[in-house]
Amino acid sequence: MDTQKPFVIGVDLGGTNTVFGIVDARGQMIAENSIKTQAYKTAEDFVEAGTLCLRPLIEQVGGIGNIAGMGIGAPNGNYYSGSIEFAPNLSWAHEGIVPLAQMFSDQLNGLPVRLTNDANAAAMGEMAYGAARGMKNFIVITLGTGVGSGIVINGQLVYGHDGFAGELGHVTMVRGEKGRTCGCGRKGCLEAYCSATGVARTAREILANTDRPSLLRNKPADQLESFDVSIAASKGDEVANEIFQFTGKMLGEACADFAAFSSPEAFIFFGGLCKAGDLIMKPIEEAYNQHVMPIFKGKAKFLISGLMNANAAVLGASALGWGE
Amino acid sequence: MDTQKPFVIGVDLGGTNTVFGIVDARGQMIAENSIKTQAYKTAEDFVEAGTLCLRPLIEQVGGIGNIAGMGIGAPNGNYYSGSIEFAPNLSWAHEGIVPLAQMFSDQLNGLPVRLTNDANAAAMGEMAYGAARGMKNFIVITLGTGVGSGIVINGQLVYGHDGFAGELGHVTMVRGEKGRTCGCGRKGCLEAYCSATGVARTAREILANTDRPSLLRNKPADQLESFDVSIAASKGDEVANEIFQFTGKMLGEACADFAAFSSPEAFIFFGGLCKAGDLIMKPIEEAYNQHVMPIFKGKAKFLISGLMNANAAVLGASALGWGE
Repeated sequence: MDTQKPFVIGVDLGGTNTVFGIVDARGQMIAENSIKTQAYKTAEDFVEAGTLCLRPLIEQVGGIGNIAGMGIGAPNGNYYSGSIEFAPNLSWAHEGIVPLAQMFSDQLNGLPVRLTNDANAAAMGEMAYGAARGMKNFIVITLGTGVGSGIVINGQLVYGHDGFAGELGHVTMVRGEKGRTCGCGRKGCLEAYCSATGVARTAREILANTDRPSLLRNKPADQLESFDVSIAASKGDEVANEIFQFTGKMLGEACADFAAFSSPEAFIFFGGLCKAGDLIMKPIEEAYNQHVMPIFKGKAKFLISGLMNANAAVLGASALGWGE
Repeated sequence: MDTQKPFVIGVDLGGTNTVFGIVDARGQMIAENSIKTQAYKTAEDFVEAGTLCLRPLIEQVGGIGNIAGMGIGAPNGNYYSGSIEFAPNLSWAHEGIVPLAQMFSDQLNGLPVRLTNDANAAAMGEMAYGAARGMKNFIVITLGTGVGSGIVINGQLVYGHDGFAGELGHVTMVRGEKGRTCGCGRKGCLEAYCSATGVARTAREILANTDRPSLLRNKPADQLESFDVSIAASKGDEVANEIFQFTGKMLGEACADFAAFSSPEAFIFFGGLCKAGDLIMKPIEEAYNQHVMPIFKGKAKFLISGLMNANAAVLGASALGWGE
């Protein structure tokens, strides 16, 4: 860590907003601002707008000479190349490879800029400032629109041979034709069951296939969201609780397989679904300990992100700015 | 690497024999000898016999001063503790924790001794002298009595939080009650299908459930081994080929999940089953490319160990002796 340069820039590049933050060594956000991600036609226009947004923040901490580096968390971000590659939900990046790290570096006096995908950025954040402080082996699982993951082994993010490792949302949980179709084009992926859309789909299936009473019937089925399930479950709704049981069981069984791979100290869950607390975490941990190899039983911790209320994605990305 | 000390000791501690070898920096076996693993009542007796077996080999290369270190590959070996822990098939180690690395070090003038499990030793060997030379991210899968694995990420063996990572034979391939019972006490593990005993079981199931003609019927079903399947397949036996198709498909689907974890450059297969060559490797690669996420398709290599005919386990363990 360059103590001569006490700040880093963190960037959370999301489908709607891109948030820029200046962060100090203790993980305090000193200044932040944002732009609309998709308001630009080209990557060049986006980088120009981002740089304009950043300049006053940088001046606020005494100029670029006080900044050690910049980290960006972005969908389909490749750490090795510093590029966003074929990101389906970004209008200016869905058809090709955008060397975003280099483009920002060119605009910012050659500042070192690193880029990774959003789940990896979350894992960096947990390690630097969150629930994984002091851990060398853990897995962050992000439960959002999709299911993402950031895997840390021996204190290092796992990027794999091509920079795309850590796609645990796409291990196959239900094999063969029975498996739900996943956004990746295959069938039976963990994401198809445990993402927000997967949870909503589970709700619709149970409501359609039974006539059990449920608070979830108060809303048209095609408008149900995972958030509705959380609210209903917190009110003691049985069907909603069963949906969490089902979702947690599948996550726990998946984690049992992940343990056979890297035997982590902890699984850390991040995202809206975790706000349900024990309603989702208990079924996960129970299914894990029921299905994992005896040698691993009872060893792993199951934690909720330590950064859920902070601007976690910016903090996580900023950790890359220290050059780790 | 300590160039002042040009040799290392490699030890392959197997259920029947324990082989000691002196290896040079190019991976040449300079001298070797062995003892019967289970001829001793206690771990102390075993270590004493092993040391006696080693002394003349050490003298042959000019004494202990020429040895940089010693590496041991052993069932249930824990790299962190240097111990064999509750090894079910070792008479003097099945009921407790044997600090074998320390015990040998004490007998050998404080020589640095490291220990790991046999599949991890195989991965070390592939990286130092075999099919994985120059690779930083690969997975070795050993197909023997069981299914083991050694995972290398960023050039390092993955040991996990507790030293027991890399148990890929025990990911669940068939969920629920349908899954075959595995030696680990659970159901549906990869090992229950793709180990030598798993392959023999597949053979017995097909023979019992159909009346298809097969060379495999020339032997009593309860004496069938995976080797018989290899021989029959090499003679064009249809049932035997179907067994390899089934086994390879399951391995390929499992590898597709492993890619989502660590996106390796190569999967390297080791053990008797690989001697069937394309008969097993082609179905593995086909199933992999059919089931893996589009982003990984066609990227990974599927290789047979480069050490199948050498004394691979000794070479692999010896690589630990360099202190890597």
